[in-house]
Amino acid sequence: MGGFRIFAALNEQYPTPHLRMSLLAVGTVAFDDIETPFGRAERVVGGACTYISLAASYFVRPIRIVSVIGDDFPTEMLENLKQRGADLEGLQIKEGQKSFFWSGKYYRDLNTRDTLDTQLNVLADFDPVLPPGYRNAEYLMLGNLTPQVQLRVLEQLEHRPKLVAMDTMNFWMDTAWDDLQQVLKRVDVLTINDEEARQLSGEHSLVKAARAVLAMGPRFLIIKKGEHGALLFHGEELFYAPALPLAEVTDPTGAGDTFAGGFMGWIARTGDLSMDNMRRAVICGSALASFCVEKFSVERLLELDDALIQQRIRQFADLVHFRF
Amino acid sequence: MGGFRIFAALNEQYPTPHLRMSLLAVGTVAFDDIETPFGRAERVVGGACTYISLAASYFVRPIRIVSVIGDDFPTEMLENLKQRGADLEGLQIKEGQKSFFWSGKYYRDLNTRDTLDTQLNVLADFDPVLPPGYRNAEYLMLGNLTPQVQLRVLEQLEHRPKLVAMDTMNFWMDTAWDDLQQVLKRVDVLTINDEEARQLSGEHSLVKAARAVLAMGPRFLIIKKGEHGALLFHGEELFYAPALPLAEVTDPTGAGDTFAGGFMGWIARTGDLSMDNMRRAVICGSALASFCVEKFSVERLLELDDALIQQRIRQFADLVHFRF
Repeated sequence: MGGFRIFAALNEQYPTPHLRMSLLAVGTVAFDDIETPFGRAERVVGGACTYISLAASYFVRPIRIVSVIGDDFPTEMLENLKQRGADLEGLQIKEGQKSFFWSGKYYRDLNTRDTLDTQLNVLADFDPVLPPGYRNAEYLMLGNLTPQVQLRVLEQLEHRPKLVAMDTMNFWMDTAWDDLQQVLKRVDVLTINDEEARQLSGEHSLVKAARAVLAMGPRFLIIKKGEHGALLFHGEELFYAPALPLAEVTDPTGAGDTFAGGFMGWIARTGDLSMDNMRRAVICGSALASFCVEKFSVERLLELDDALIQQRIRQFADLVHFRF
Repeated sequence: MGGFRIFAALNEQYPTPHLRMSLLAVGTVAFDDIETPFGRAERVVGGACTYISLAASYFVRPIRIVSVIGDDFPTEMLENLKQRGADLEGLQIKEGQKSFFWSGKYYRDLNTRDTLDTQLNVLADFDPVLPPGYRNAEYLMLGNLTPQVQLRVLEQLEHRPKLVAMDTMNFWMDTAWDDLQQVLKRVDVLTINDEEARQLSGEHSLVKAARAVLAMGPRFLIIKKGEHGALLFHGEELFYAPALPLAEVTDPTGAGDTFAGGFMGWIARTGDLSMDNMRRAVICGSALASFCVEKFSVERLLELDDALIQQRIRQFADLVHFRF
């Protein structure tokens, strides 16, 4: 495995042009109240775009953010994002308004959660506007948002990016099916969880579900199964990445977005769309997600470094290694 | 991966003494009525010992069977077992009595099932008697049975085998805790599912559950997660084998026993108790189990060959392969 000089090898294998590549990340920047069996966190920083950006920042910079917040968002967190390579030009700050707020409670298995409160606030009439410098994006991650907003972003691009990935959720399948299908036709990668894959396809078997979803547009489908890992489907090819079994999971919030950020960060950094590199990207996403759940909010994502990530990827390799 | 000449390489890597090794398999030989969302099968052959023996027979022979049936069991099936290398000397046939019967119904996700009927019949007063030729067993698989019966088998052995594996279930945790703990102290490998691991340990995290269970006696713990694969714990070492995502699952009955049979068959064939070889054994068990679920009852397990198994193991390797 190349001695696991992952970050050192990056500079050799994928020469400098990719260093100039950037990632466009669209999604919420928000406040969360989180309750788990192991504790609670109030009014902590959350939002898909926040997790995506922080995770991706370990592989690629800048991350060009498209989102909206109120004037209640902590300056310190915006500084954190900037320091980790975020370009905030596309972040709208609405004076006199409040940021998006979500409150949820997890049950003992941490796989099921109830939404206790959702306050759209600035998100209610969010119209994403891409600054001119964003419109030639090569890599785009559309975080979970209404499909109409996702379409609005796609419309503003000057050309089709090298890779567009999107996340979505069951709520849009229930309420915005036609719009969702429009977005699906225009993306390369869809990341959803197993129940969402079943709902979207009407198939229980994930293999059959994947075939149906791939026929809707995306060339790659990633089905996230939480503590049971993730599956990457592409044509008849299939890759399975385990989740790292952890003794302690503190807070699963943002794990899926972190996965997407790690995945797209790796892709944008390497510029390599081969299936072999997609497999690596899934492992990068899984590794970042395994860190994310160790602490509340984005706390753990602020304290990583190359060595920690490389060591974690090594653990994933050891976990599944066998040889006959 | 040695060109995946798995079966050819076996004879080179593990020389002939291991060919003389045999596996002792204890468990039920039974009739099942099975209902799934995709069909039903009535009065088909089932039982843990049947699945264990057929799966193991692709790696090691003879398989010495310890079980009990009535005089209602089909001669043809006994012939099938013999032809696949089973030694039936330890199979008690009770004249005028009926074989064990189980009836179950699976729900859409195939992970949950209801037991509709259980008729113990010959199993009610089963006293396992090991023929003298069985008592020097080197490899022993104790299928799911009352812990008392499992203990009775262990008591009749002349010496401690090289490896003893056992299966059990939540019912014995509820009704025979002390006996179960006695057996656990005397085995090397325990195979249970994730819910059973949680019940046995009182821990929700599988990592913590494994630590607790390994403290009860077994050196190796295999947690079977059905369609989510299997985890092998040994000290602080951890191996994860995925399940092969299948488009069609016809009947999950016996998959866990088939896993155990493939696992112990490989171990008995190779005589190699290293962790590296345990990983291979888990993959062999997973491969056999992935075949088992393709058809009702033991049907699929009667029609395999080396080439099919080798090809399936190759699929498992491809499924998790990545390299940085």
